[in-house]
Amino acid sequence: MGIFTKNIETFDDLFLHQLQDLYYAENKITKKLPGMIAKATNRDLVAGLKAHLEETKGHVERLEQIFKKLGKKPESTDCPAIDGIIKEADEVSGEIADKEVLDAAIIASAQAVEHYEITKYGTLISWAYSLGHDAVIGLLVATLKEEEAADKKLTAVAEDKGVNRKAAS
Amino acid sequence: MGIFTKNIETFDDLFLHQLQDLYYAENKITKKLPGMIAKATNRDLVAGLKAHLEETKGHVERLEQIFKKLGKKPESTDCPAIDGIIKEADEVSGEIADKEVLDAAIIASAQAVEHYEITKYGTLISWAYSLGHDAVIGLLVATLKEEEAADKKLTAVAEDKGVNRKAAS
Repeated sequence: MGIFTKNIETFDDLFLHQLQDLYYAENKITKKLPGMIAKATNRDLVAGLKAHLEETKGHVERLEQIFKKLGKKPESTDCPAIDGIIKEADEVSGEIADKEVLDAAIIASAQAVEHYEITKYGTLISWAYSLGHDAVIGLLVATLKEEEAADKKLTAVAEDKGVNRKAAS
Repeated sequence: MGIFTKNIETFDDLFLHQLQDLYYAENKITKKLPGMIAKATNRDLVAGLKAHLEETKGHVERLEQIFKKLGKKPESTDCPAIDGIIKEADEVSGEIADKEVLDAAIIASAQAVEHYEITKYGTLISWAYSLGHDAVIGLLVATLKEEEAADKKLTAVAEDKGVNRKAAS
């Protein structure tokens, strides 16, 4: 539990809480992605998820740099949202036997994760401007751009690399 | 529980499962938005959430039309993702006493909900094309556009209508 999880008094506390929430989420994603990669079949999907696993490790490091720039220790707080998104991914994939349908489901689940991160980094950037935390904006923007690119790449794998077509055949 | 929750055999089963997931999510959101509206202070935020509550009721109706067009009965399936996103919204808002900081947190939570819906409708549209469910694409696109517009409006309320500025002051 993060130090502010029981008492968010100021906007700065809320900002720190959301950083801790994302720190939990990014760490959790680094632990879950290998399992998704192991279940995936399509070559482009596997390559895309592997590349994103490496990026995600970089996102954890960027968050650690941000905590440091703010004079805070990196800490996590519970994040029921990412837990729920991952629980749903596990439940759906556990119900699918067909490899090609499973690839389509994995892409949908990975995009739900990406969108959660996109909205949270977007919020943090907006809040950082208002709070004058100019020193961390560049780091947050760098990660946001990678999340957005990962989401677009997953759409391309689904639509242009045969995943949806094979699932439907 | 939806009829396919224990056994997704085909891509069409997966499509139906995701429709049932969104039907659960949209219904849940219509139940949660009044509480968020009651907690919000900023006039533009309250107006935006009220307008989106009415839109969300329309999204439920559109999903019912989609089930009908597919020859299926409207049913829900569990959606741990939206449950988690809403649990997180409740937990964070429960820790904030300051009304202006709370407005900023409500916007962030509402945008997390929007992004979940944006990714899910995006996926359903992509799958509907692959499956040849042309008759339902227009309805899905209409809702997606409203979710994207709601997300942008929330950003505008945060950044241009004083919510972030007041939270930071």
